[in-house]
Amino acid sequence: TSFLQLHPFIASPYKFWLNVIGIKNEPLLSGIAEIFEIHSLAIEDIRNNQQRPKLEEFDNLVLLISKMLYTKGNISEIQTEQVSMVIGKNFLITFQENEFDLFDGIRTRLENPLGKMRKLGPDYLAYTLFDAIIDEYYVLLEKLYDKTEQLEDLVMANHHKSLLSQIYRHRKSMQEIKKVVWPTREILSSWKKSESTFLKKKTQPFVNNIYEHSVEIIENLEMQRESITTLVEIYMTNISLRQNEVMKTLTIIATIFIPLTFIAGVYGMNFEYMPELEWKYAYLGIWIFFVLTTAGMVYYFKKKKWF
Amino acid sequence: TSFLQLHPFIASPYKFWLNVIGIKNEPLLSGIAEIFEIHSLAIEDIRNNQQRPKLEEFDNLVLLISKMLYTKGNISEIQTEQVSMVIGKNFLITFQENEFDLFDGIRTRLENPLGKMRKLGPDYLAYTLFDAIIDEYYVLLEKLYDKTEQLEDLVMANHHKSLLSQIYRHRKSMQEIKKVVWPTREILSSWKKSESTFLKKKTQPFVNNIYEHSVEIIENLEMQRESITTLVEIYMTNISLRQNEVMKTLTIIATIFIPLTFIAGVYGMNFEYMPELEWKYAYLGIWIFFVLTTAGMVYYFKKKKWF
Amino acid sequence: TSFLQLHPFIASPYKFWLNVIGIKNEPLLSGIAEIFEIHSLAIEDIRNNQQRPKLEEFDNLVLLISKMLYTKGNISEIQTEQVSMVIGKNFLITFQENEFDLFDGIRTRLENPLGKMRKLGPDYLAYTLFDAIIDEYYVLLEKLYDKTEQLEDLVMANHHKSLLSQIYRHRKSMQEIKKVVWPTREILSSWKKSESTFLKKKTQPFVNNIYEHSVEIIENLEMQRESITTLVEIYMTNISLRQNEVMKTLTIIATIFIPLTFIAGVYGMNFEYMPELEWKYAYLGIWIFFVLTTAGMVYYFKKKKWF
Amino acid sequence: TSFLQLHPFIASPYKFWLNVIGIKNEPLLSGIAEIFEIHSLAIEDIRNNQQRPKLEEFDNLVLLISKMLYTKGNISEIQTEQVSMVIGKNFLITFQENEFDLFDGIRTRLENPLGKMRKLGPDYLAYTLFDAIIDEYYVLLEKLYDKTEQLEDLVMANHHKSLLSQIYRHRKSMQEIKKVVWPTREILSSWKKSESTFLKKKTQPFVNNIYEHSVEIIENLEMQRESITTLVEIYMTNISLRQNEVMKTLTIIATIFIPLTFIAGVYGMNFEYMPELEWKYAYLGIWIFFVLTTAGMVYYFKKKKWF
Amino acid sequence: TSFLQLHPFIASPYKFWLNVIGIKNEPLLSGIAEIFEIHSLAIEDIRNNQQRPKLEEFDNLVLLISKMLYTKGNISEIQTEQVSMVIGKNFLITFQENEFDLFDGIRTRLENPLGKMRKLGPDYLAYTLFDAIIDEYYVLLEKLYDKTEQLEDLVMANHHKSLLSQIYRHRKSMQEIKKVVWPTREILSSWKKSESTFLKKKTQPFVNNIYEHSVEIIENLEMQRESITTLVEIYMTNISLRQNEVMKTLTIIATIFIPLTFIAGVYGMNFEYMPELEWKYAYLGIWIFFVLTTAGMVYYFKKKKWF
Repeated sequence: TSFLQLHPFIASPYKFWLNVIGIKNEPLLSGIAEIFEIHSLAIEDIRNNQQRPKLEEFDNLVLLISKMLYTKGNISEIQTEQVSMVIGKNFLITFQENEFDLFDGIRTRLENPLGKMRKLGPDYLAYTLFDAIIDEYYVLLEKLYDKTEQLEDLVMANHHKSLLSQIYRHRKSMQEIKKVVWPTREILSSWKKSESTFLKKKTQPFVNNIYEHSVEIIENLEMQRESITTLVEIYMTNISLRQNEVMKTLTIIATIFIPLTFIAGVYGMNFEYMPELEWKYAYLGIWIFFVLTTAGMVYYFKKKKWF
Repeated sequence: TSFLQLHPFIASPYKFWLNVIGIKNEPLLSGIAEIFEIHSLAIEDIRNNQQRPKLEEFDNLVLLISKMLYTKGNISEIQTEQVSMVIGKNFLITFQENEFDLFDGIRTRLENPLGKMRKLGPDYLAYTLFDAIIDEYYVLLEKLYDKTEQLEDLVMANHHKSLLSQIYRHRKSMQEIKKVVWPTREILSSWKKSESTFLKKKTQPFVNNIYEHSVEIIENLEMQRESITTLVEIYMTNISLRQNEVMKTLTIIATIFIPLTFIAGVYGMNFEYMPELEWKYAYLGIWIFFVLTTAGMVYYFKKKKWF
Repeated sequence: TSFLQLHPFIASPYKFWLNVIGIKNEPLLSGIAEIFEIHSLAIEDIRNNQQRPKLEEFDNLVLLISKMLYTKGNISEIQTEQVSMVIGKNFLITFQENEFDLFDGIRTRLENPLGKMRKLGPDYLAYTLFDAIIDEYYVLLEKLYDKTEQLEDLVMANHHKSLLSQIYRHRKSMQEIKKVVWPTREILSSWKKSESTFLKKKTQPFVNNIYEHSVEIIENLEMQRESITTLVEIYMTNISLRQNEVMKTLTIIATIFIPLTFIAGVYGMNFEYMPELEWKYAYLGIWIFFVLTTAGMVYYFKKKKWF
Repeated sequence: TSFLQLHPFIASPYKFWLNVIGIKNEPLLSGIAEIFEIHSLAIEDIRNNQQRPKLEEFDNLVLLISKMLYTKGNISEIQTEQVSMVIGKNFLITFQENEFDLFDGIRTRLENPLGKMRKLGPDYLAYTLFDAIIDEYYVLLEKLYDKTEQLEDLVMANHHKSLLSQIYRHRKSMQEIKKVVWPTREILSSWKKSESTFLKKKTQPFVNNIYEHSVEIIENLEMQRESITTLVEIYMTNISLRQNEVMKTLTIIATIFIPLTFIAGVYGMNFEYMPELEWKYAYLGIWIFFVLTTAGMVYYFKKKKWF
Repeated sequence: TSFLQLHPFIASPYKFWLNVIGIKNEPLLSGIAEIFEIHSLAIEDIRNNQQRPKLEEFDNLVLLISKMLYTKGNISEIQTEQVSMVIGKNFLITFQENEFDLFDGIRTRLENPLGKMRKLGPDYLAYTLFDAIIDEYYVLLEKLYDKTEQLEDLVMANHHKSLLSQIYRHRKSMQEIKKVVWPTREILSSWKKSESTFLKKKTQPFVNNIYEHSVEIIENLEMQRESITTLVEIYMTNISLRQNEVMKTLTIIATIFIPLTFIAGVYGMNFEYMPELEWKYAYLGIWIFFVLTTAGMVYYFKKKKWF
């Protein structure tokens, strides 16, 4: 908590990584800002955990703001965590709100005194952290895929009213991910093109690599979005088809029995002079008529492929 | 009201801010135009309160036209107020139609003789004012979100005819905001790239900052627009589902009772030779037939998952 | 009609404006083409009144083809009139098919010997004419707005079949306007970037001004197009809602009366052994049954919010 | 057929045009390829009559592949014919599969020894041929318009099932044309920007001219495509409106007669104690009741504007 | 398997092609990486068979990752196989997971000691392999066309529920192909613009050629996608039309017989005073009334073109 002891490090030729947890700790942040001469706007961006991912070059350092995306269970509850990195000449400072263990593997690799991370500069370390963050996006993508496939099966099989709101929530999840990944691609594109002295040429192929990852994630998101759009169409068509089926049932029943009921009604009339009423086989005849009419109707509907 | 007293200021090394209220005051505007040598086209743009936001560089000054957006209550009644800024070597002139208190905070900060605003030039002051304007956009965005969520709940729950016209009005509000924010982004992009001597390099990181805000606002608007499109889809599907339900009710009732009515009609016929009529248990039998047929139908519909 | 007398003007230091009416007058056009050394392709473009608006730079002059849009009454009958301008070193030639009075105000301003138009070159005059043409577009835009609002009210209130073809015609009007305004923006963009000696730097801010007008018109057209798309959606949903209402009426009536009719039919049967027929209060009882059933149904539908 | 006699021409200062008919004639093509030193890839493109239109610059010549589009009768049967042009220093070679008379007019103009075609180089001749090809596109566009208008009238008037497949075929025709015109625009854009010595500066304004034609054709295709999309919407709405009408007819009839039939059924019951049956004016009264009920219903439907 | 023997080749002036099968063979890959000094990121990309197609330039070589697409039978089961190529100064190394015979023809051509492949460098060989891969895409495209046409016929003829899921799967196939072809175009575009010493200028026209193929494939995919979208529309309209037909059948039957049944019901009432019952020709008259009403109805429906 005493910042004075950091001063000798800055001037020293040693490279070091400072991991700051708790971006709401005002005195801590302003202390660090003062020692490392971080621009007031950069500190403001670090403090604001609603910040859009970005890469900004200042005279004495580079600011990179990225977002961790993770989910504890269901894909519809995506959590966001902001990770800001300040890349200087011989130091990397990372800021995060809560402590989490995503970077543990990197710490282990860092302890290896002959590792690439020790040889290359703080920008390479920043790349490694960013790489770990983007690898997590793939985990989310996988879960999105699973959910899409699950919705697919549901849409193909039935048509509960709730399905549509599930699809709606699924789309919202995609939007949330896209909202983070889209500017991430921009960041990486800027990094690739950057001529800052703090982002060395040697790190470029690595950055290019995760740039391609971000492009791939975006493409996959787009493809899933399209699939979802088609799913909604299928869902709506299924509703129409079902309504069709209901209508056909009604029409078949009504078309067969309404005329028969009329005929029955005719012979239920009380006119005094109705010669048929006295015929001996009239009743048998009318039943034959009923049966033949029904058979004819059924044949007609079969021919029209109504059932 | 006498402009002569302004002359000494212009030549002096002091920086000053002139806030002009009432853009319809012709002599005031032409007086200021003459003293500060403002191009006739610039004055025309300032006077026309339907002007699209823009940044234009003249030889002796920079003209920036921005729009305040605010709402007194409901999000569907967005008010627009034009704020034009003329940035010169050592002065900033702002023009507005009505007086409002958005800039009060800035005035207070300006009174601090050691503040950054005093040290940096009039372009920094212009940035500060613009920043305050864009911060107001976030307030609107928040209200838009609330309205979208409210519509979401309504769409999920019911299907009043008025819902669609509410959605329609909501979309119009978005369009109105977009119409202002879109050119605002362009302005800020021009400012970032500008090489005018009146827009100093030192102000650039700040401008970059609000440029990103404008990008973020546009992204959020786009995302909400997408959500609204999906909402309309859900709304229309709900109508279809409801119609389906109505149809099913009709079909179940009709399919059960129309055949039964026919049978009842048959035994209401007045033929002389109808042997069943005299059978002792015919009436009982026909009721058993009615009940069994109905049960069969209900079972059939249950199996088809109609209810 | 004798072209020879024009020759001395061309070589003279005087600026002049030649307004040619009747682009079908072949000898007139070829005469002018010869004197002013207008490229054969330019003359062809002037002659063809179906020409897409454009700006083309030749070695000795600049050709600008624009379209007047106006309507005598209804917005659905837009008239187009081509105005071609040839801007040379010290002359402006305008070609139009029919005489019209749009440029009268400009002629008056031109007569003022101290006016800006006299001081600035023929490109400024061309700008003034173009400005007058674009101002007319706003008149059309206003009429489009009125029509859109009228359609809005109609769609909200009813659903005549003819409404859709009205919307269709309205969209076609928009397309026609867009077809002219879109290339107009391109022209103005080219003019802004042009390095032709005939398009002087001093005119640039003015051109920039009408360029922004054209951008604004296009944005407004896009916004109206979106509104119209939403209107069609609302219209179709209204049809669905109405169908829903019709279906509900049918279903309520049928669901209440079909079962009752069945019961009435049962007691209309002629079986000999129907004990109920002889009960004293059977008829009263059946009416009570009818009333209770109906009340139950009505309660059920009310609970389901069907009416 | 003997190629040797061509050799002296190539070295000569004369310009010439060689029109090759029959791209399947292998020895002919390879002969020409050898004499004029045409790159093997160019020859392959010429031979393949499924080639996408393109302009390619080689060291010693320029290859331009274009497509003739024409139709003998119906717009739905578009024929494609590939015309490849090889533009060299002093020669133009055109390759086509079949002989057709589109270029006859050009041949006549070419015979005029003082014509522009003779003065300007082979690239101008190529432009002339290309211009003739693009003029043919306008003929197709005209036919597309006619078909669109015809479909418009049909959609407005009726709703045969076949209409939709007609629209589908119409869209396919548009796609086919677009598939050719889109790369044609690219070709012309390349030509405009080309710095090849074989495409001279003097021809540029002419190329610019047909470039604009291609842009116009594409814009028109897009506008027609939009119209067609709207037509499909109108068609589907018409189906809905018609269904609405059918439903209303059914509902009116059913809503009026089902309750009346119930009443008639009630008095057809055979209960022994039904006091109304013996009333003198019961039968008259019931008819009055029937008529009043019907009148009330009709009034209700009229008020609801159902017919 | 002993890599040592490769060393002399690398330094030698001979060009050679090394085809590595089995990208999961770790020691093999790391051996090759060491000998040819392949960057660790390149090896990682080669090993990962989910890699997006790409072209990456390293200091000492160029990495090209492409995807073979093929299908054994049905178009809905597309198989993907990754082919990575490493282009060095005098060598080409290809990596594939399984052995397949697509490159057999190339091997044969390679054995010709005077062939173009022997004269030109390893980049030309890479082009040849890539060309063979892209030629296979056309085979898939052909199959896609066949499937689209088959779906077209099915949609025009009937409306099975399964049709929609077939269309859905068809769209997914297109997406899969697009996912590979889209970055392929990018690769080829990079190759065209590349200034790497390993990608020689002489190979450019050939690369340009397959670049155009990839553009064409993408255009065709887009066109088919549009066709499919239209097909879905037609399918949904067919469902509506069919529902219309069902509704009409029901309405015609109900509208004719419901009123007649009412009339029959009226004369089935048991009122004591019903004068018509005793008329001599009442029964005949009512039949005449029935027939005339029906005829009138049928005439009315015919006039309304209901059948």
